[in-house]
Amino acid sequence: MGGVFITIEGVEGAGKSTQLQRLETALGSLPTVFSREPGGTALGREIRSLLLAPHASGETWCPQSELLLFYADRAQHVAKVLRPALEAGKIVVVDRFADSTRAYQGASGVDDGTLKALQDLVLGDFRPDLTLVLDMDPTRSLARVKARNAALGDTFTETRFDDAALRFHQRVREIFTAIAQEEPRRVRLIDAEGSADEVFARLWAEVRPVLARAGFSVA
Amino acid sequence: MGGVFITIEGVEGAGKSTQLQRLETALGSLPTVFSREPGGTALGREIRSLLLAPHASGETWCPQSELLLFYADRAQHVAKVLRPALEAGKIVVVDRFADSTRAYQGASGVDDGTLKALQDLVLGDFRPDLTLVLDMDPTRSLARVKARNAALGDTFTETRFDDAALRFHQRVREIFTAIAQEEPRRVRLIDAEGSADEVFARLWAEVRPVLARAGFSVA
Repeated sequence: MGGVFITIEGVEGAGKSTQLQRLETALGSLPTVFSREPGGTALGREIRSLLLAPHASGETWCPQSELLLFYADRAQHVAKVLRPALEAGKIVVVDRFADSTRAYQGASGVDDGTLKALQDLVLGDFRPDLTLVLDMDPTRSLARVKARNAALGDTFTETRFDDAALRFHQRVREIFTAIAQEEPRRVRLIDAEGSADEVFARLWAEVRPVLARAGFSVA
Repeated sequence: MGGVFITIEGVEGAGKSTQLQRLETALGSLPTVFSREPGGTALGREIRSLLLAPHASGETWCPQSELLLFYADRAQHVAKVLRPALEAGKIVVVDRFADSTRAYQGASGVDDGTLKALQDLVLGDFRPDLTLVLDMDPTRSLARVKARNAALGDTFTETRFDDAALRFHQRVREIFTAIAQEEPRRVRLIDAEGSADEVFARLWAEVRPVLARAGFSVA
């Protein structure tokens, strides 16, 4: 496989979208594919709708089904988009991948053994070359989301972040941190505090050598 | 768990629908839940549509995603319908369950180790008390489906059963037979040749003692 596979993870409000835009600009004319999960394929977007929109029946997904749907989306994305792009030698950047599932479903109460077993079963040894986790205290990141929602006049979402939500996001952060400790070669925690320029400088310092080693000429 | 969990499996055209109707009649006023997979819940019916209807984009599911979607449907069905009904002491009869996934996805090329690992991961030790496999040579069962489709004026589906389809259904039958050999206590092959009355007599001879042992009074 000739390409480079990079994933970007992190708690909500840590600045993922902004950093992805900067990365796209920085990679300029290099051959890239930017994608996201869930919903990196046409069929995956159907799964995304099922996962993210409340259902007319009022029925909600049990945690296991939710997990299996994320992996159904992922298997399709890997088969139809990621593997072909990597085999074609491209730089593939994905907004959330398996580590998000482990962090979010894990924080929702699915046990880590199940999460790892399903990951191994579906992905085998298919792993990112580099995973960047935008790391920030959830009390700060959720305040940013809240301010953004309020500015957009979204008073419904604004009220979502109560103490339970804060504890949930703290748990998500802890799992991301644990994954980074388990796999220090692949996973880098990026301090997401500071200006977008400062954060991007930290991120680029991790990305640049990985691309250079893979033979891409980067500034 | 006070109830009895029965699944009905078999190749297409073996008479599953007819036998399910007879079983429903025979169980009369006993407390029963009849359901099916995929699509035993409101959300599961959304998955069923994604699995069975061609998508507007022309994209098709990769075998792994298909498998994970069947299990997402199943996990939801187990959590929301099957376990609660069994805990309430009911006789639960399901039209297709995990053995169909093993037979059909296995015949489609997914390796049996993956199928068994996913089954164990999602279902744990949740298994039917009795599985009835309506067994018939696919050259006969597919001829029945063909005749039925032709009678309904469905010339599109009629042409589907070529040599490749026949080999596929032969492989499905082989896997059902192998499962019955692996788990003779749980799984019974029912000869599906003969009149509906004859087949039902064979099926009832398997069902009756299981219900009686569980304390249900059956004729």
